[in-house]
Amino acid sequence: MARNGLLDRRAFLRGGVALAAAMTGYTLSGSAAAEPLAEDSWSKVPGALVPAYGVPSRFEKNAARTLSNPKGEPRTQHARTPHHLLNGTFTPNGLHFVISHAGDPDIDPDRHRLVIHGLVKQPLVFTLDALSRYPMVSRFTFVECGGNSAPMFSKEPIQASVQALHGLASCAEWTGVPLSTLLDETGVDPKAKWLIAEGGDAPALSRSVPIGKALDDAMIALYQNGERIMPGNGYPMRLLLPGWEGNMNVKWLRRLKLVEQPAMSYYEARTYAPILPGGKAYQFYFLQEVKSFITHPSHGHALRGPGFYEISGVAYSGNGPISKVMVSADGGVSWAQAALQEPVHSKAFTRFRIPWRWNGGPAVLQSRAWDEAGNAQPTRAQIVALRGETKTVPRVTGFPSQHYNGVTSWAVDARGEVKHVYA
Amino acid sequence: MARNGLLDRRAFLRGGVALAAAMTGYTLSGSAAAEPLAEDSWSKVPGALVPAYGVPSRFEKNAARTLSNPKGEPRTQHARTPHHLLNGTFTPNGLHFVISHAGDPDIDPDRHRLVIHGLVKQPLVFTLDALSRYPMVSRFTFVECGGNSAPMFSKEPIQASVQALHGLASCAEWTGVPLSTLLDETGVDPKAKWLIAEGGDAPALSRSVPIGKALDDAMIALYQNGERIMPGNGYPMRLLLPGWEGNMNVKWLRRLKLVEQPAMSYYEARTYAPILPGGKAYQFYFLQEVKSFITHPSHGHALRGPGFYEISGVAYSGNGPISKVMVSADGGVSWAQAALQEPVHSKAFTRFRIPWRWNGGPAVLQSRAWDEAGNAQPTRAQIVALRGETKTVPRVTGFPSQHYNGVTSWAVDARGEVKHVYA
Repeated sequence: MARNGLLDRRAFLRGGVALAAAMTGYTLSGSAAAEPLAEDSWSKVPGALVPAYGVPSRFEKNAARTLSNPKGEPRTQHARTPHHLLNGTFTPNGLHFVISHAGDPDIDPDRHRLVIHGLVKQPLVFTLDALSRYPMVSRFTFVECGGNSAPMFSKEPIQASVQALHGLASCAEWTGVPLSTLLDETGVDPKAKWLIAEGGDAPALSRSVPIGKALDDAMIALYQNGERIMPGNGYPMRLLLPGWEGNMNVKWLRRLKLVEQPAMSYYEARTYAPILPGGKAYQFYFLQEVKSFITHPSHGHALRGPGFYEISGVAYSGNGPISKVMVSADGGVSWAQAALQEPVHSKAFTRFRIPWRWNGGPAVLQSRAWDEAGNAQPTRAQIVALRGETKTVPRVTGFPSQHYNGVTSWAVDARGEVKHVYA
Repeated sequence: MARNGLLDRRAFLRGGVALAAAMTGYTLSGSAAAEPLAEDSWSKVPGALVPAYGVPSRFEKNAARTLSNPKGEPRTQHARTPHHLLNGTFTPNGLHFVISHAGDPDIDPDRHRLVIHGLVKQPLVFTLDALSRYPMVSRFTFVECGGNSAPMFSKEPIQASVQALHGLASCAEWTGVPLSTLLDETGVDPKAKWLIAEGGDAPALSRSVPIGKALDDAMIALYQNGERIMPGNGYPMRLLLPGWEGNMNVKWLRRLKLVEQPAMSYYEARTYAPILPGGKAYQFYFLQEVKSFITHPSHGHALRGPGFYEISGVAYSGNGPISKVMVSADGGVSWAQAALQEPVHSKAFTRFRIPWRWNGGPAVLQSRAWDEAGNAQPTRAQIVALRGETKTVPRVTGFPSQHYNGVTSWAVDARGEVKHVYA
């Protein structure tokens, strides 16, 4: 039996009767009902010109990505997704996270080429036009930086929003050509075990990918949420490796070379092969494991008085579909099962929701996810026991900063303010 | 047996073997393979600053909505979706169609109110904050103007893109509060049979909605594709009536009044109650019926030589999920079943795809959809036999201009140019 106000997840699927009863007697509607309906200024004058490409209202200026390097100095730029201001099951294109090591290249799609060579029977070069003739598929898939949630390794909980903590993960519908189709065209030499993917940005970022993944669900993505890929997300094409470390989903893709051994490129040899406490390197860390976090309410939100609220957030796993999300309102003492927004896609954000009646007292909100492969999201204590902690705020790179997938805890105080805690 | 080059829809689901064989021997890859891989200018210099809100590449400036009233003169503005440049299963927010009768109002979400009154037990006024506390749901739903595809009633086929012909339909994931939940809160007087929905724009656009729809799948939508609703699509809230005429999905929603009789408001009495040939008015025309059109290839595209292409498009029905899409490459003489991108959502765009080997000769491409309720998309001949034709290009309003859901035909000539034809 879940305590501290968590209600049955099916309350709002049964058609509202139970839920309305749950809300009656609280001030949610009562206080609002006292307000008169004003004749608003915007109802008295013509509105603005409808633009050729729509952008959000000026009142939504906070629904923006936070930038780690807003002047574009010659180092990496991070742009984080404002999860606390979003709802639904994926990330709109304007707000998809970006990590760019030398800015967003200005690629002419008519001049861009993708070459597939190395241990193939026939090396091929593809224009965007040529790729666009191949059979396409669409799929929702999250992409997450291996260093997302790095601040969670800090010894003390950092007072920061879900955007600052977990903003290097986003989800989109990607449409493109299965890589297996193109490898059928080139043919694959049986000696080929790896594929080196290289981007067309100035650092020519490259990563090694096992041939098995390339022949499984890898895609050359050409569209993001229905339109051409955003400049920061790899325009005009990127490698998509559903469920695998963000950096491997090479953006601005220009080359796939089939080889016998991994390239031990800069990123896989340095950032993504962290030295473990015992002295060995973690080689390689492909998978983004099962994870969840609550986005509403979360740090920076304020609850306006006791009563009914919906707790919601996102869960995802690189292993496949999410099977279950449990939510606690008392710091993990008791749990209740959240509703999952259907359909649940494999390796994609899954929105979970559960009704909660806040009694005005202290509460600690947590979520914990399971995937269909049977993996459970660890508690924070479990993950730092394995990987260690840092005294200061960890950088996105370095150790321990990689692949945090533990629980996040939000404490609600008596004033309704939400703080980040370890619980 | 489908003729003129249509291939089995499962070709690309079987893992490519059959497909590669189908492509071998054509020039698709052969010609591309001869090109060298250039060292591109953008690979030599740092890229652009990553912005706080991402927008498409400057090379995608054609992927824009076309505007019927680009100077914002005091009349209706239409902004049409460029379906021929999109792919996937829904419309990104920047390109969702808009019809605005007095521009996009600049609504302050903190001051905006929604009142529910009339034949209720307790009238209530909701702030956006109050609504945000209620249990939410997310669903993909198309919205389509009743006057979309009006040019198809023209006696002669208009040479225009799929954007000009069918650009007043789009699809998004909408997240918000089921209207039934709010009506549970207000209580409904048994005498209430209709609900008058009113917008907060200057014309205070209003439409009447049967109470049954309000209690079924109607939603007060607060988010569009994950972020707050776009200004042109109803920011900060709109009524969503999945599968029903676009104009009824009242934007900038400020009032729901429960009543015994429909209001016979301007739009429902004039535009959307067209006088039928026999002299009676069509009262009312809620449903957007089963429909499909091919987006690739379509008018304005050019095929670059014979060989393999993917034919794809969108299908949707206000009655529920699409069950089947058939495609013809010979003007309706023979048909083959297209693959549907899964999961197929009810009352949402469904992307269909089928491989096609163009022999370089004349072809006429058509699609025809069926929904799970058993409704078939009519041919153009069937629909104009019922509704008539016009000598000139019909306006979006007037008769016959409403609710065209017949077949669209694209003719490919020997040069690979795609024209609009009636076939």
